[in-house]
Parts: sequence; structure tokens; C-alpha cells
Amino acid sequence: MADFKHHIDLPVVAFTLGDINGVGPEILALALNSQSLRTRLRPIIFGDPDVFRDACRLVGIPSPEIETVAGPNAVRHSRSLAFIESASAVPPRRPGKLDPEAGRCAMEWLAAAVDAAMDGHVDAIVTCPINKEGIHSAGYTCRGHTDFIADRTKSPSYRMALFAGAMRAVHHSDHVSLRGALDCITKESIVETIRITHAGLARLGIERPRIAVAGLNPHAGENGAFGMEEIQVILPAIEESVRDGIACSGPYPADTVFRRMRFDAVVAMYHDQGHGPMKLIAMDEGVNVTLGIPIVRTSPDHGTAYDIAGSGTARPDSMIAAALLAVRLAAHRIEALT
Amino acid sequence: MADFKHHIDLPVVAFTLGDINGVGPEILALALNSQSLRTRLRPIIFGDPDVFRDACRLVGIPSPEIETVAGPNAVRHSRSLAFIESASAVPPRRPGKLDPEAGRCAMEWLAAAVDAAMDGHVDAIVTCPINKEGIHSAGYTCRGHTDFIADRTKSPSYRMALFAGAMRAVHHSDHVSLRGALDCITKESIVETIRITHAGLARLGIERPRIAVAGLNPHAGENGAFGMEEIQVILPAIEESVRDGIACSGPYPADTVFRRMRFDAVVAMYHDQGHGPMKLIAMDEGVNVTLGIPIVRTSPDHGTAYDIAGSGTARPDSMIAAALLAVRLAAHRIEALT
Repeated sequence: MADFKHHIDLPVVAFTLGDINGVGPEILALALNSQSLRTRLRPIIFGDPDVFRDACRLVGIPSPEIETVAGPNAVRHSRSLAFIESASAVPPRRPGKLDPEAGRCAMEWLAAAVDAAMDGHVDAIVTCPINKEGIHSAGYTCRGHTDFIADRTKSPSYRMALFAGAMRAVHHSDHVSLRGALDCITKESIVETIRITHAGLARLGIERPRIAVAGLNPHAGENGAFGMEEIQVILPAIEESVRDGIACSGPYPADTVFRRMRFDAVVAMYHDQGHGPMKLIAMDEGVNVTLGIPIVRTSPDHGTAYDIAGSGTARPDSMIAAALLAVRLAAHRIEALT
Repeated sequence: MADFKHHIDLPVVAFTLGDINGVGPEILALALNSQSLRTRLRPIIFGDPDVFRDACRLVGIPSPEIETVAGPNAVRHSRSLAFIESASAVPPRRPGKLDPEAGRCAMEWLAAAVDAAMDGHVDAIVTCPINKEGIHSAGYTCRGHTDFIADRTKSPSYRMALFAGAMRAVHHSDHVSLRGALDCITKESIVETIRITHAGLARLGIERPRIAVAGLNPHAGENGAFGMEEIQVILPAIEESVRDGIACSGPYPADTVFRRMRFDAVVAMYHDQGHGPMKLIAMDEGVNVTLGIPIVRTSPDHGTAYDIAGSGTARPDSMIAAALLAVRLAAHRIEALT
């Protein structure tokens, strides 16, 4: 890995190392070594330099020159790969092993990165996977990255999205039971999902984005024969959004809406309605995006993959795609602020 | 279209013409003209010869020699394309137009074909699409083909499946609201779905089929964090099925189970859970199969497509795939009976 010759005009992207016992360090090492990232961003890693060096060795690339900095501002003047460390001691890396101490470090890095983004020191954050059991056993009560970030940035209306090239799904609800997801189907909240989707696409630089809204029931309810939510809730929400000037339409049957290529995004009514089709479309290049928060945050669309962690075989495709999307979102964010 | 030189050892497949104002007649004309079907089955059409001749003209193929027969037995000795007509008068074909009389004819053809299969005169039936509004306005109360056939064959436990090559989904519930689908999640009924799936795969000639059972909630409930159905209902149903000698496993997260290629079928907990991924995988070659009934029945995985009916542009891929699958299922059925 060559030295980091940062250009002052490139966006600063914070990477959080996540669970050190997952594949995160390995995919991050590979991603930062890729030409496509090196020319497009200035990285700063919230994590442990020794774990990162070890990951470089595992994946067979030379470790870059590393500098531990006190605060994210330093990255703008550093020629080395800048690291910000956690207050807690980092346990030894034991790939594939659940370790509460690793969970604690992951969350401290995440909190520091979010704060740096909120303070404007970094332009975007990209998060390596964490293990939910690990963070819970470390005493954290959040369900995962997304709600922790939403809470820390005081964002009550956030939405989880999956992006894969020109195919995008924004989820009306995410990590709740399917029965709980049904209870989330209200006109006001769907209007909010559509609004957040529109704003997210605009931030990508898409002019007058076209949004497809999926139905909830089979065949989008087939005129009320298989459920009334489309008629009573979803269609009124779409109509209100259209009145607000958003180019959205539907509700479309969920089993074919992802084959309609003329939309910039699909609003899915629940987690698996979007995830099922998107994971097939995206294969290894899907990116998780949090919309409705005041900072740019993306992540690879996979977990810690304990089964292959430490083997050096994890592919960095989704991590690279996540970083490139963060850069694109940050560019428009910077534009909007200036 | 050349003469039909039927071989006595080929299975007899009944095709119902469906809604004459949809694309059915056109895709059936194209499918029966294809070499892949002509060498594998003896067709008999429950429908109107004039509509079929007109469809041949529309898609640009010569009409075959046609013979109207009184009963399905005659096809075994006919060198022409055999037709069985309806009792009701057939209205003029008006592509794309809803016509209750067309709905009535479609259902009469269907009823006669089902009876012929039950009586053993035909080995399988393949149904062209019908229009639900059309059949309802003709006074029929069924939701569609599948429940009509289940009712007529006295089959209380039927399941709708989608097959596309080696990818197959069997749906625990189908045309009910998502809230209604949640109420269908009981251990006994899931055991029944797994049993029906196993029997359907065995009929395809697959020895010791491997069945993946999807979860209901995001991440298959994530150990109870996002719903308890996996722990309380689905896993016990899988365990009982395994004790019954069925090679099934799960519950797997629904958003990745279709990417696991080592299964012969996925049991989906509700309509869109299977349809979303399968319609992306299958593209134009998905086949709808009814399992748990005493006859072989398949159909193309699309509707009447009123928007292109009459234009001669509908593709017969799904109809051809449906007919070939019917032949395969019929072959094993015949084998099992002898």
C-alpha cells in the first residue's frame, strides 16, 4: 500500500473498524488499497492500527504508513493513514469469536465517528459490520448501527435503504416483526418515508426522482380483495406526496415492482419486501444507506461473517461500493452547504 | 403449423384457452407451434377453434388442421388438433376488453378440463390466463383458477408454487391479505405445506428433495428479537417434518434463502416472500404449479396482459415452460400409477 497523498479537495470519509473479530478489518484493508477509492477520498479510520496491520497481512497487501491522530482535523494535513483510537483497551483479535470487549470498542469508534461527522470534521462515515450479540453483551441496548446513529444524531425519522447501482429500495420499517411492520402502516408515516426517499435521491444529484411505492398485500390488494391498506392508507399517502410535488406513483404489486426499471427507487412497506429482491439484484455490491439523518452514512450490505473472518477470503466489493456511494452523497452534501 | 402426428406414448395435455380477450390464445398458438412441445405431448384444447385460428393469424403462423371432438378420449386417435367446445356461445374476440361472456366460457372450459383430468382422460392440464373481474361478473365466486380447481377436485390442502428451472418456491398462503397470512402461521399447517412440497418434488423425480423453510420475520426473527413465530411455530414444524423423514431445514432469513442454491425448493411463508425473488429469478420462464391436488396442473406465471392482447407480441416462454413442466410431472404421475 503506497503512502496516502491526500488532496485537499477530496472528501474526508471516516471508516469505523466495527467488530474486530468479523471480516471488517480485512475488507477495509482491501478496499482502501483499491485504486478506485485511493483517488476519490481521504480516509480516516476509527479503530485499532494493530488490528488493521494484521488484516493487511492476512489479505496479502503491504500495510500503509499509519499515524494515530488525536482528532479528525489532523487527517487534512497527514500523508499517512490516520487512525483515531478508542478509550477502551482493544482486546486481541480472535476472528469468529464473540467478545464483549470487541463490541465495546466497536461502539466507541462508531460514537466518535458520528460525532466527528456531526461536527463537520468528516464528510461521511462508512461502517464495518458489528455483531449485535456482542454489543448487547457489552451493555448497549440499540438494535444495531442504524438506530444508534439515529439516536445520537437526534433523528426520529430515519429510514434504512439498500442501494445497488440504479436499483434502490427504501424501507418503511426495518427491524421489527412482520406483525409490528403492519402496525407501522399509517398515512402520515408513509408520507414521511416518501419525503425522506425523495430527499435522499435529490442528495444523489438525481433531478426530479421517480419513486415507485409498493403495495403491502399480494397483488397490491387487488382492488381490496386481499386487504384494504392500499386503498385506505397507501394510495392517500401517495396522492398527498404528489400534491407536495414529489414524482411518486403506486401502489404497485411488490412482486413485480423491482422489474420496472423506470424508477429511481422503490419504497418498500417492510424489511423483506425490499431486501428479498434487492439482495438478488445486488449480489455482492449492495450498499446499506441510512436516510433521514443529518450526516452521510453507508455500510456494506452484509454482517460480520464470522465463518470466514480471519481467512483473508472476504470480498471487499460491498465495502468499496459503500465508500463510493458515501463519496457521491458527500459531494452533493458539500455542494448544498456551500 | 404441420399436422399433429401424435404418438400414442406421449402424455395427453389439456390446454384451456382462458380469457379469449387476453393473450392466452396467442401464446398458446405460438407454444403449440414450437418444436419443443410438438415432440413431447399430445395437446387437446378446451376452447374455441375460431379464436385459436384467429390467434394463429395474429402471431403469423399457419393454423393447423383442427377437429372438434365430443370427448377427450378422441384425441388419442386424432391426427388433427383436437378441440372441446363450451356449452355457452363464444362471444366475438375483442382483445383487451372485459367481457362476462368470455369469463363464462373460460370457466366452462376449465371445469371440463379438470373433469377430464379427474377421469383420467388427460394426463395434465395447462391453463391460459383468466381475468378475475371477468369471471366474477359472470357470476363465479372463486378467487381464481387455483381455488376453483382445488374445490372441484375436493382438495382442501392445496398450495401455490412457482417453479423456474431448479429454483422453486411453494407458498404457505397465497391470495389473502398480509394480515391474513400471519393468521395462517400454525405448526400443523406448516407441517402440511412441507409435506405437500416434498410430495411435489418427489413427483418431479427428485430423490430425497432438500427443502429450505423461510422465516416469517426480518432475519428470521433474529433469535426472537424481531418476532417469535420462528421459535414457537416454524422451527417445531421443521423438526416434526424431519422426524417424518423429510430433508428440510431452517427457518432461514427470507432475504437470502433464494441465494442458497443447495435446495430443491423454498417454502415461503406468504405470497410476496416467494413471488418477489422468484419473479426476478424466473424472468419470463416462471411456471405456476398447483400442489396438493390429485391432478397435474400448471400455468404460465402471468395474467391476461390486456395491454398487449391482440397485438401478436406476447412471448410464449412461460407457456412453453408450463407445458414442459406439466409433461414432466405427468410422466412421474403415470409411472406412479402403473
